[in-house]
Amino acid sequence: MLVDHGLEILSEQECMDLLSSAELGRIAVSVSALPAVFPVNYRLVNGDVLFLTGDGIKSQAALQGAVVCFEVDEVDAANRTGWSVMVVGQAQLVQGVEREAYAGVHLSPWAGGAKSHLVRIRPEFVSGRRIAG
Amino acid sequence: MLVDHGLEILSEQECMDLLSSAELGRIAVSVSALPAVFPVNYRLVNGDVLFLTGDGIKSQAALQGAVVCFEVDEVDAANRTGWSVMVVGQAQLVQGVEREAYAGVHLSPWAGGAKSHLVRIRPEFVSGRRIAG
Repeated sequence: MLVDHGLEILSEQECMDLLSSAELGRIAVSVSALPAVFPVNYRLVNGDVLFLTGDGIKSQAALQGAVVCFEVDEVDAANRTGWSVMVVGQAQLVQGVEREAYAGVHLSPWAGGAKSHLVRIRPEFVSGRRIAG
Repeated sequence: MLVDHGLEILSEQECMDLLSSAELGRIAVSVSALPAVFPVNYRLVNGDVLFLTGDGIKSQAALQGAVVCFEVDEVDAANRTGWSVMVVGQAQLVQGVEREAYAGVHLSPWAGGAKSHLVRIRPEFVSGRRIAG
């Protein structure tokens, strides 16, 4: 077990297992060279992060194929334990025939409003840490 | 009440009140031009975000005075409600005499390991959204 600053370094498999267990993550993108972070609810499908979004910063990032960070964490404040996983990869807008392949995937955004864009992040780099008890 | 894509836009005062009510946030920084996100536990003091960290990516960002994003959210998955706030500002390493001014601030990192660097983010831009029920 690797430990860095009191944090256990998770294996890639552990990271993917944790990613598939959660439903809320946060996407970090650059907007005019400034960092911005937005929560989204997502699904992990075939190792890719998928979420729906409306017209805006996230769909623009996907349209441009921007490299983004997607982070998921779970903490237990009472016991001061928790883990976090982040993946870095290109955001892509899934369209046309390719989108039909995801027809069976149930994505249900919590917020209202039109969310017609399907965004996929294909992880190129995965890392995770857990607070070592 | 402004609503954007089913999300209520929060006022700056609401954002600061929510920031001061939480203890866990996430800092987004650039590492070799790639975005990275790390959870940290923090305190809001005089409108600034403060946290302790060890030698690493976050202390480097502060040493360089990088512009970072700090995000806090709270969600209720069962009711599919929640809010998120983000601030963007320069990360600064607080040292020397200036650090003494924060001697009374209790910061207690959850993870073990040496966390001797005090980092301050002075918000330049604040925004927040709440899922409109």
